[in-house]
Amino acid sequence: MRCGRAGPRDRRGGCGKLGAMQDAPNTQDRLELQLDFILEIDRLKSVLRQTPLADGSRLENSAEHSWHLALMAVLLAEYADAPVDLLRVIKMILVHDLVEIDAGDTYCYDEQACRDKARRERAAADRIFRLLPAGQREEIRLLWEEFEQRLTPEARFANALDRLQPALLNFQTQGRAWRSHGVKLEQVRRRMAPIADASARLWGHVRTMLEEAADRGYLGR
Amino acid sequence: MRCGRAGPRDRRGGCGKLGAMQDAPNTQDRLELQLDFILEIDRLKSVLRQTPLADGSRLENSAEHSWHLALMAVLLAEYADAPVDLLRVIKMILVHDLVEIDAGDTYCYDEQACRDKARRERAAADRIFRLLPAGQREEIRLLWEEFEQRLTPEARFANALDRLQPALLNFQTQGRAWRSHGVKLEQVRRRMAPIADASARLWGHVRTMLEEAADRGYLGR
Repeated sequence: MRCGRAGPRDRRGGCGKLGAMQDAPNTQDRLELQLDFILEIDRLKSVLRQTPLADGSRLENSAEHSWHLALMAVLLAEYADAPVDLLRVIKMILVHDLVEIDAGDTYCYDEQACRDKARRERAAADRIFRLLPAGQREEIRLLWEEFEQRLTPEARFANALDRLQPALLNFQTQGRAWRSHGVKLEQVRRRMAPIADASARLWGHVRTMLEEAADRGYLGR
Repeated sequence: MRCGRAGPRDRRGGCGKLGAMQDAPNTQDRLELQLDFILEIDRLKSVLRQTPLADGSRLENSAEHSWHLALMAVLLAEYADAPVDLLRVIKMILVHDLVEIDAGDTYCYDEQACRDKARRERAAADRIFRLLPAGQREEIRLLWEEFEQRLTPEARFANALDRLQPALLNFQTQGRAWRSHGVKLEQVRRRMAPIADASARLWGHVRTMLEEAADRGYLGR
């Protein structure tokens, strides 16, 4: 079996590695590393969240969730209270859930699971981002950390969208996930509150929507 | 039942519209339109492509595919032969498949289906982008048209990734979709050729990978 330079991504160490070694005995080719990473992160499509799709047909996965957020960033950037670098917001959104490939999705109202979430996600970041070539490894890691820390206007806006989106889907499905987990209005309001740090307009919308959800019985009081 | 200003997105005309009308009798609130659009495009998560996930567990959908491409753009932009505005590339990628909500995914090797693809997708664009408020409607439509026309460096690079990604997934799954549709090397090479207009490096990789795929029987000769 011939192994070309641009051989297959074989995680069990096959032609890909062998192929690269023909060029550079000690280092794997940069593009090879990037393509291996691109195949590795395909696994995010199999990480299920607690949020249903808008039509209630199944649970959402973290990859399609990330797409939805990224496009929301394009559409709703005008409501950010502080000026934001949209490219940076979108990059953060695209990578913010990658750690779930190892750490899984932690339901935000599951207090038990939230206790060691940071530790699990940090270990995941250590493994996953290290798969990238030098330079890119640090860039992507910093984007993830910026998102987690919520200190910049970009991180605050990206986080706001990450909270708004499941609320929209939950409302649309008559509180599907909220009801199945017995979540209360006050819990959701606390979870959503950081939206206020990014956008008064979006926060106003969410506050009204949550009241309405409680009135309709989608959420407990 | 009380209907707040920021009421639910009810496609059958419910509180959302009524709520907006309390503020502005003749026009729906801009944010309401954007949030309705955001719920409408959730349907892209249910549009299945012919490409399998990397682990072969199921077919990929167009929303998670778009996320994958957008992150590939971040990681592989360095291989674009002409300088590209990365934000523009990513925006194009995020919207490029929205028309499939109405038109469905057309398999690129299905000659019959490809005949009226342009007509079906144009009708879809007319309906879907018109849901957006003024200004944004035109912006998103232009991004989609730019992607389709492949005339700018950004559109060429976005298109290159849209071709590279399914090839990677097909190779990784021993030619799953290629074999099940009896696709030949020459067909795939023709389909992939526009990658050469965007990136000599990526095209070199793909050419070698396709040869290898044929050698291994993932693709017919």
